[in-house]
Amino acid sequence: MTQALAERLAGVVGPDHVLVDPAVVEGYVRDWTGRWRGDCALVVRPADEGQTAAVLAEVAAAGLRVVVQGGNTGLVAGGVPEAGDVLLSTTRLTRIGPVNPVAGTVVAEAGVTLAALQDFLRPHGLELPVDLAARESCTVGGMAATNAGGIRVLQQGMMRSQVLSVDALTVDGRPLVRMHPLVKDNTGYSLSALLVGSEGTLGVITRLLLRVVARSASRAVVLLGLPGVQAAVDVLAEMRVRVPQLRAAELVDDACLRLVLAATGEPDPLPRRHPAHLVLELADGPAGLDRLLTALAGAGVTDDPLIDLAAADDAAGVRRLWGYRDRITESVSAFGVPHKFDLSVPAARTAEFVERCGALVREWPTRDPLSGRSPRPFFFGHLGDGNVHVNILDADPRDDALDDAVLTLAAQHDGSISAEHGIGRAKAHLLRLNRTGDEVAAMLAVKRALDPDGRLGRALLPFDGARRPG
Amino acid sequence: MTQALAERLAGVVGPDHVLVDPAVVEGYVRDWTGRWRGDCALVVRPADEGQTAAVLAEVAAAGLRVVVQGGNTGLVAGGVPEAGDVLLSTTRLTRIGPVNPVAGTVVAEAGVTLAALQDFLRPHGLELPVDLAARESCTVGGMAATNAGGIRVLQQGMMRSQVLSVDALTVDGRPLVRMHPLVKDNTGYSLSALLVGSEGTLGVITRLLLRVVARSASRAVVLLGLPGVQAAVDVLAEMRVRVPQLRAAELVDDACLRLVLAATGEPDPLPRRHPAHLVLELADGPAGLDRLLTALAGAGVTDDPLIDLAAADDAAGVRRLWGYRDRITESVSAFGVPHKFDLSVPAARTAEFVERCGALVREWPTRDPLSGRSPRPFFFGHLGDGNVHVNILDADPRDDALDDAVLTLAAQHDGSISAEHGIGRAKAHLLRLNRTGDEVAAMLAVKRALDPDGRLGRALLPFDGARRPG
Repeated sequence: MTQALAERLAGVVGPDHVLVDPAVVEGYVRDWTGRWRGDCALVVRPADEGQTAAVLAEVAAAGLRVVVQGGNTGLVAGGVPEAGDVLLSTTRLTRIGPVNPVAGTVVAEAGVTLAALQDFLRPHGLELPVDLAARESCTVGGMAATNAGGIRVLQQGMMRSQVLSVDALTVDGRPLVRMHPLVKDNTGYSLSALLVGSEGTLGVITRLLLRVVARSASRAVVLLGLPGVQAAVDVLAEMRVRVPQLRAAELVDDACLRLVLAATGEPDPLPRRHPAHLVLELADGPAGLDRLLTALAGAGVTDDPLIDLAAADDAAGVRRLWGYRDRITESVSAFGVPHKFDLSVPAARTAEFVERCGALVREWPTRDPLSGRSPRPFFFGHLGDGNVHVNILDADPRDDALDDAVLTLAAQHDGSISAEHGIGRAKAHLLRLNRTGDEVAAMLAVKRALDPDGRLGRALLPFDGARRPG
Repeated sequence: MTQALAERLAGVVGPDHVLVDPAVVEGYVRDWTGRWRGDCALVVRPADEGQTAAVLAEVAAAGLRVVVQGGNTGLVAGGVPEAGDVLLSTTRLTRIGPVNPVAGTVVAEAGVTLAALQDFLRPHGLELPVDLAARESCTVGGMAATNAGGIRVLQQGMMRSQVLSVDALTVDGRPLVRMHPLVKDNTGYSLSALLVGSEGTLGVITRLLLRVVARSASRAVVLLGLPGVQAAVDVLAEMRVRVPQLRAAELVDDACLRLVLAATGEPDPLPRRHPAHLVLELADGPAGLDRLLTALAGAGVTDDPLIDLAAADDAAGVRRLWGYRDRITESVSAFGVPHKFDLSVPAARTAEFVERCGALVREWPTRDPLSGRSPRPFFFGHLGDGNVHVNILDADPRDDALDDAVLTLAAQHDGSISAEHGIGRAKAHLLRLNRTGDEVAAMLAVKRALDPDGRLGRALLPFDGARRPG
């Protein structure tokens, strides 16, 4: 049957874009963490919305499940299919434009990468105000489907604040939502807003109207060394009010900084070691730095003998200081395969959570069978959003109990088990840590309303009992 | 039966908060435009979420329909009930807090007015970045339910960008969504985002977690006189890129300005008359004005002999210049009962739409039976959002054909028949101008998923054929 479907799909998208060779398919069914591996009947890559609709209609006739995949940069296996599924790759939906500088909008197809979009917008003096490390590969469709966040949420919000409307199809290939080229459009339920964060389970996004903002020519950055996470929270509370245009506020703990120094050979940015660091960013190089330093002085930070400070308002200096934050992920990976968590907790409980989670990890009974060492925690992330990324080195890679313990601890601190990465398949069994039975029932009712046969996607809701495929 | 229900509800909320006296009920069933008048079995005013749930359960047992109403400031009759309905007023749900300056959030119950919220936030140096004229009466619950906009959407987005999560109940009084006190929380479909803009037809919002921003101590404003709407669009395109932090960009046509001058006795702000005006605002008084004027000079605006300019960077001057925009609505009302429209069109078609719509109105065959004059159009609004408010004086107040003609013209210009006010009941029969049959079917499927008996609300979807009640 797969053979017959493959031939019909080849008639739609051309034979080059129906992939069945296991060696080629492998790149689509394995997620980039390497921790998840699925399977599928075939991969199909339509070139436009018309082809996408025709593909979906053919797959519907065959009664197969569809998993939509963008850049395959997800961290929770939301785009990993199972045997017999059709994997619909959006990577050929790459048209961009028009851009509208008056409204501050741009139109982009779902498969446009974040980097390609920013390159397109740069000559217009504009940018999408969501930025994240996977920018070269992640697609705007995937970013919308997962409600991606990143470092600028503090000022600009997540993808849901940028997605003004979408073109989307039902799992059967019928139109579900039509994009209007408008900033304001209160005409009925916002199915677009509902699709954002639905992780590819309610509709197939083919095109988006995105909010864009003026690109700042230069930036100012301050890196503070502080006596602890609570001190970082307290400084940030002052700075948010004193500096309305604060663009980013990132936490870096001492363990992260030591790891980055060891992995990169960069010099220590501060004269002394500190338990926690806070990276603050503002637009407008020198003027921005003036405002940051004035506000820090006003808040009593500059004169505090326990606090050290490094600052930059030139491009090279800004890049250098951001390096201590941006290079944490690669530095962690240089020392092993980490357990990675994307949590959020209320600001008032962040310091308490970091302390308890650190103790939990350090006292964890199992070790990495290769290194023989005990687990070591690393805490960093978007402090303004309460979004803590916890990485753990020297834990047994197969030890799922550690994952569940950390996520449960976050939920016990009124936190979320998924701040920005999504539930995917990795956390579907834990959704009830954050959502009540009533809420899951309501989500399932919405799912049934838009995908009655449950053929779209494998992420998010525990439609079946499977935990880890392949 | 109403008597029995009233007694049971009195047992829940106390007898003072079940209203059946027609003279008292009148204030709830008539909308503030005076154009719509409904009816209801009774008005009930619960004091907290527990009472709200108990009220909804009692009404469910009685099988009646529920219409939720906040400040009753809607312009499209979304909160106007019909005979036999229970009107659930949220005006006693007025608790505010806690505020969280680190995360930039505040918790507020649904019945908190915008003005009360801003008063609460002011000592913290914070504000909700949505502001609108009905601020003394409109409630944050109603603002969320209608996805309210206002003058700061350009920079901060609509209510959907401010509502991080909600507590909401089903029409039966069961929990539908639970608020998490988190900025980032990608755990399942965002039912909160779906409720925003659903006009009270999917769930009953009782409490909200709202995004707040640092309050700017001072502002700078420039009022430009320009050769036409297209010139205003062109200047704005330049300014959006040159001044990233532009807070507002409002259009005021010559007819509006003349009317304000006549109604208020204020002096003309500019030395010459101009077909169109653009009001631009930035934070930070003197420094902001510097940036505005530098950018205008860079864009060649300052030297243009056709353009006049007035500017202010002090509180009194800013208030005076904003008066020419803010007082349009009251000035229009001083000269008659207007037809009012809330449209949006793409920026590229705004000038064309204004011209054609002006011609349509001026050539309209019917007249105001009282004044005997022909209809006169007034154009103003949020130019950056393509959001044009059209007011028409000297038209027959009962002439619905004029309304339909203007809205149809907007749709023909790729525009929306509701930019920010919503569909309500007033435009339900016109929803298909903007939404396809597939889209309406999907909305109805979502409605059935969350309110299977169709007992919640009367706005938005054409569940019944009635157009204007009472």
